[in-house]
Amino acid sequence: MFTIRQIAEALGAEAQGDLDLLIAGAAEPQDATADQIAMAMAPKYAEGLQAGQAQAAILWENADWQSFGLKAAIFATRPRMAMSGVTGMLDRGQGFAGGIHPAAVIDPTAELGKDVSVGPLSIIGAGARIGARSVIGPHCYVGSEAVIGADANLREMVSIGARATIGNRFRAQPGARVGGDGFSYVTPEVSGAENARKTMGDQGEAKAQSWVRIHSLGAVTIGDDVEIGSNCTIDNGTIRDTVIGSGSKLDNLVHVGHNTRVGNDCLLCGQTGVSGSVDIGNNVVLGGQCGVVDNIFIGDGVIAGGGTKILSNVPAGRVIMGYPGVKMETHTEMYKAQRRLPRLMRDIELLKKAVFK
Amino acid sequence: MFTIRQIAEALGAEAQGDLDLLIAGAAEPQDATADQIAMAMAPKYAEGLQAGQAQAAILWENADWQSFGLKAAIFATRPRMAMSGVTGMLDRGQGFAGGIHPAAVIDPTAELGKDVSVGPLSIIGAGARIGARSVIGPHCYVGSEAVIGADANLREMVSIGARATIGNRFRAQPGARVGGDGFSYVTPEVSGAENARKTMGDQGEAKAQSWVRIHSLGAVTIGDDVEIGSNCTIDNGTIRDTVIGSGSKLDNLVHVGHNTRVGNDCLLCGQTGVSGSVDIGNNVVLGGQCGVVDNIFIGDGVIAGGGTKILSNVPAGRVIMGYPGVKMETHTEMYKAQRRLPRLMRDIELLKKAVFK
Amino acid sequence: MFTIRQIAEALGAEAQGDLDLLIAGAAEPQDATADQIAMAMAPKYAEGLQAGQAQAAILWENADWQSFGLKAAIFATRPRMAMSGVTGMLDRGQGFAGGIHPAAVIDPTAELGKDVSVGPLSIIGAGARIGARSVIGPHCYVGSEAVIGADANLREMVSIGARATIGNRFRAQPGARVGGDGFSYVTPEVSGAENARKTMGDQGEAKAQSWVRIHSLGAVTIGDDVEIGSNCTIDNGTIRDTVIGSGSKLDNLVHVGHNTRVGNDCLLCGQTGVSGSVDIGNNVVLGGQCGVVDNIFIGDGVIAGGGTKILSNVPAGRVIMGYPGVKMETHTEMYKAQRRLPRLMRDIELLKKAVFK
Repeated sequence: MFTIRQIAEALGAEAQGDLDLLIAGAAEPQDATADQIAMAMAPKYAEGLQAGQAQAAILWENADWQSFGLKAAIFATRPRMAMSGVTGMLDRGQGFAGGIHPAAVIDPTAELGKDVSVGPLSIIGAGARIGARSVIGPHCYVGSEAVIGADANLREMVSIGARATIGNRFRAQPGARVGGDGFSYVTPEVSGAENARKTMGDQGEAKAQSWVRIHSLGAVTIGDDVEIGSNCTIDNGTIRDTVIGSGSKLDNLVHVGHNTRVGNDCLLCGQTGVSGSVDIGNNVVLGGQCGVVDNIFIGDGVIAGGGTKILSNVPAGRVIMGYPGVKMETHTEMYKAQRRLPRLMRDIELLKKAVFK
Repeated sequence: MFTIRQIAEALGAEAQGDLDLLIAGAAEPQDATADQIAMAMAPKYAEGLQAGQAQAAILWENADWQSFGLKAAIFATRPRMAMSGVTGMLDRGQGFAGGIHPAAVIDPTAELGKDVSVGPLSIIGAGARIGARSVIGPHCYVGSEAVIGADANLREMVSIGARATIGNRFRAQPGARVGGDGFSYVTPEVSGAENARKTMGDQGEAKAQSWVRIHSLGAVTIGDDVEIGSNCTIDNGTIRDTVIGSGSKLDNLVHVGHNTRVGNDCLLCGQTGVSGSVDIGNNVVLGGQCGVVDNIFIGDGVIAGGGTKILSNVPAGRVIMGYPGVKMETHTEMYKAQRRLPRLMRDIELLKKAVFK
Repeated sequence: MFTIRQIAEALGAEAQGDLDLLIAGAAEPQDATADQIAMAMAPKYAEGLQAGQAQAAILWENADWQSFGLKAAIFATRPRMAMSGVTGMLDRGQGFAGGIHPAAVIDPTAELGKDVSVGPLSIIGAGARIGARSVIGPHCYVGSEAVIGADANLREMVSIGARATIGNRFRAQPGARVGGDGFSYVTPEVSGAENARKTMGDQGEAKAQSWVRIHSLGAVTIGDDVEIGSNCTIDNGTIRDTVIGSGSKLDNLVHVGHNTRVGNDCLLCGQTGVSGSVDIGNNVVLGGQCGVVDNIFIGDGVIAGGGTKILSNVPAGRVIMGYPGVKMETHTEMYKAQRRLPRLMRDIELLKKAVFK
């Protein structure tokens, strides 16, 4: 339970009314009970406030809070920042018990920091090191010689491969995979795929061959404050490590191939896939289901719309979209032209009739 | 073992010949042994019937069964419905043992209904409730205070987050994830991504910033008769629950973001991804690898072809395709025009020469 | 530790200098320590060689090794083949302990070959059979009556469904799923989706209906030398088995639907999805995020660029790209025309003015 005063102070926001009112949780305005604070940060939620039972709300700036029959209100200047503060305060977590569960399997050579907790049926491998206060959820696997920093939070069924190095405040959602082997093969002689890539379409005389494996000697290095989503996969590097920079966030089912370097503070949205040996700068945002071909670079601050397939280098700061990804304005212009294409074709028919008849 | 009579009755189908013939399993016509019923529901399978050893078959309507040397036949008016009936009868399952395995870790406060079985190395969290006859497979995790209805069937390595609420007859394939945290972040000040979205491409003067987390206070609510595929992921809502309506089916590697509501009787095919805060109606079919941008609605009965990227609201009943998704007929027209584009360009060159020379 | 001589012999490559020099590992040239061999197989790495401490390197053909201050050098005629050999020799693996871990749960009716190892908290089901020297990692599940050949290597949290049949030298990365049920449903009467597919866009008068399940009686058959990536999913067949041919490699998050047959020596890159009942030939390469619609065939040696959506049969040997996938040269021609479209439209306006004014 928090008072309105405590919540407002945590948000650095202005509050009015009964600042000692106690709040047990948050709710959408129409669903709120009397002890919940209504999240109503835009005028469109006014109606919901009337329908629900909330006595307090987080409102848009300058809202006439008393007109909604509230006892107290907090005013959000940047609604999603307020959402961050409130949800962080009220998060009840997953209810994982503290301590080392007796059904965990921990190698005697593993080093666990102060107040580390390990859930039931989790495995900590030989020589692994886990920083203070980290929570290793149930059914997790931390491979041999892997290092995880302080204050990590691993949900259930997360796996971390051998020799991964992970910074502080790491978060991993259920089923996230760090450190699978890279997908890397070669044919003894030049393959049709190599030829087709060079010629943009011609396989040449290459014969059918079997694939020979290139092993992954590298591991994965992850910075501080990284979060990775459910069932996402980050592969080991071939010789050096695959790298995810500090502050970067990967959504569910995101794939990062071997040797790739993702910079700091990047956002890789759901089901985005990055091939091997890609170099991604800082503050890059890739929307959902983006794809990135191997061996290219993406400059700092690039933003790619959902579904963009990035097939060549992208200079810093560019906003791109499409398959293949091009500058957003080019994409928009091309797309508009495509929509007009059927009409255009009729125009050309008329022109041909007029000119050549 | 079933008789032909039992199978025909279960299908509500007509049968002829030796109705007491015993059947141990089903097979494709060319692979069938003498105790298997051949699935030959279209004339193209006639040849396979000759090649195999089946003494009985499910045939297309009015097939001349005796000409294939069969002792008995069942006639399917709707072949895939017959397939449903036969495969349901003959499913041997995964061979999970009944009862509570001694190597399961079950919190004493969890409530298990009558005849619930829990596989080896599964975990049932504090306060979780599981309905009668439900099968929790091996290596599963059911989070604290999660509720699963009666007659559920969880395959191996399924995880259900805290406070999820799931109806009756739930099915989850291996590695399915319910209740990861939503992918939701905000920057302290307006970000380049926000600007680019508003202006369709211009990041403006936004500076590089780090991402601040918005926690998920909501959970996941799933109706009755829902099935979710291998390694698919359904995220918790931010304030309210993410919702999957009764009768909906999600294929492998499907992603459903936070706050999204999927209606009843929807089909989300392989690797489809739905962002956060999407509102999907009933009886919607999204083909494989579809993508849905956040904060839009998709009306009842919408059908999207494979690979469609849905970037704006879709009215009920529409059939769509493309990137971005448009009405199927518009897509077809646009695509045909594109195929003719190279020829068109030559026409225009000729026109220019004729008119401007 | 290996000598330069041993490495060169293993690669079948020429070496010069001190062939008895001992090597402990491999590194990128600039990162190499004195006991590591520098992987510098192209002239662009020359600068890195100066920066690092390596005393030996694998170099491009005819490189002047002594000018880099090296004591020994190996010369690679096909750099990635050399990479395969070197990484194979120096792979330290995951550090899984040998033998059967006491915390594994192994059904007494399972048959384990000579020198099989089973990691902690893994489950081997009733009647399962595992070939000699296979490594079943931690947290794995091998279903009842599943068969895995010799020399398999399963990483952590891999699951194999009941009755799967897998050849020799199988490799599975973390979280890979074999044998989920196929995604197969039918409505009692003709559905809007069926109508729309037939008419290319018209749902007709079909009413809203619920989905009825078609169970999977088949399993999965996998040949020899197959590798499957992290969190990928291969579904059971309906009546017959889903098949992955010998030598084929599947990357992370790849999906293969029920009944599909993948030929030999295919490469399915990251996040590619293949629907049900597809017939894929030998030596097919599907780039990342490709999609394949159900019930089509893809001939031997087909190569599809990243992001290609294959919506119809593809004859053998073709190189394709696009959505929908077309011959690479057609795609290139169409794309170039699209880029010129905006200019084209201005030309047409000028023509119209000139001709019709």
